[in-house]
Amino acid sequence: MKRLELLGLEHIGEIRTGDLLGYLIVDACSRQGIELGDNDVLVIAQKIVSKAEGRIIDLKDIQPSERAKELARELDKEAALVEVILGESRSVIRTGGRALIVETQHGFICANAGVDQSNVGLKQVSLLPKDPDRSARALREEIHKRTGKSPAVIISDSFGRAWRLGTVDVAIGIAGMKAIKDERGKNDRYGYQLKAAVAAVADEIAAAAELVMGKREEVPVVLVRGFETEKREDGSAQELLRPQAEDLFR
Amino acid sequence: MKRLELLGLEHIGEIRTGDLLGYLIVDACSRQGIELGDNDVLVIAQKIVSKAEGRIIDLKDIQPSERAKELARELDKEAALVEVILGESRSVIRTGGRALIVETQHGFICANAGVDQSNVGLKQVSLLPKDPDRSARALREEIHKRTGKSPAVIISDSFGRAWRLGTVDVAIGIAGMKAIKDERGKNDRYGYQLKAAVAAVADEIAAAAELVMGKREEVPVVLVRGFETEKREDGSAQELLRPQAEDLFR
Repeated sequence: MKRLELLGLEHIGEIRTGDLLGYLIVDACSRQGIELGDNDVLVIAQKIVSKAEGRIIDLKDIQPSERAKELARELDKEAALVEVILGESRSVIRTGGRALIVETQHGFICANAGVDQSNVGLKQVSLLPKDPDRSARALREEIHKRTGKSPAVIISDSFGRAWRLGTVDVAIGIAGMKAIKDERGKNDRYGYQLKAAVAAVADEIAAAAELVMGKREEVPVVLVRGFETEKREDGSAQELLRPQAEDLFR
Repeated sequence: MKRLELLGLEHIGEIRTGDLLGYLIVDACSRQGIELGDNDVLVIAQKIVSKAEGRIIDLKDIQPSERAKELARELDKEAALVEVILGESRSVIRTGGRALIVETQHGFICANAGVDQSNVGLKQVSLLPKDPDRSARALREEIHKRTGKSPAVIISDSFGRAWRLGTVDVAIGIAGMKAIKDERGKNDRYGYQLKAAVAAVADEIAAAAELVMGKREEVPVVLVRGFETEKREDGSAQELLRPQAEDLFR
């Protein structure tokens, strides 16, 4: 029987700048009696990666520019917050209501450049990791160092969608697996050659993990067991980004 | 430990118009030794629901309109296929390259109105169920009749995304659960009141199930166990649609 299992890792504790998060995850696995395997996928919430990397900013240290102040008035947001968001962005894609949709420095199109006020200190915000693929690779190496195993690693964050309400978690950083599963060219049971069968499996794994994580950071890491990833040392969340030339909606 | 389990149901057999799919799913569970529970979620691939409902069309029976012929030339698609897609659509949202993005009669924004050539006979296409929420409710009732249990039901399909490559599965029909999980107003561990914590859990469950289903219809139903749904008799996939007035991208 095809079977997938997701296990939530708890009690990882408050993460501080410089913490070796990979080691802490291995410890949490041990405490819960989980032995990591090479075929597992570890989904790690962006927030704790950002904390370990010191990507936390005090809004009171920020001097908002005139542009940030103007946009803040328009969107009924705090000017310092808008300043931080603009600093994380390549370009503003849309504004409307209170929404500020940007392209981040990494190329993600999302609200507020992933800058987030939840689960950090009051008047603080967390930024996305500077290079989430590199973060994922580093975590995978730490985990390998301590266990001899090399599970795939996905760093996840909650993104909105253009036409659907609510967020779903997606992969913003990936190590050790291919982000998509391409079944194009295979035949279905009727002999029809599949044409559109490219699944964003790394995003689906991130979405699945969110069901276990929730939004309050009590379960910041989820182990996914039973999905046959396509192993890939150069796996990257960049695989998931639609090139601008093919973008019909920007 | 928070734990989620997904089990693939196999050997459901070729589905034909009029088949009582709910009963067939119960039979498949029995054969695999699975006892359904009220807290389970059954994710059912749209394709087999469409087959049971006779939503299969032979392209050779279709007379394409002039508009369909013109669009077909522009997009390098078959005119009869484009005619079927237009018939399923309220409006065309974008065209470009070979892509035809529409708003379906249900209000979904997706490629080709969900009309699909895979896993049906050659020269046939499947349409989405006419009212996927109603389909989900009917399946739930069939399952209840045979088992006395009322798991939630999600009908899923693979949708593309505006800015990310690859499809992820989403919920197009829902019965017995709330589509979103709204944690706004709750406090995080730091006393910050969560503002953006609305997860599209029905979509995340559909995405998770796709990891077990794949694209070749060998596993057209997935049982999800361990997620605490918010039970809701009037649950609907319509909850997931962003109102046009808030749409920044149409």
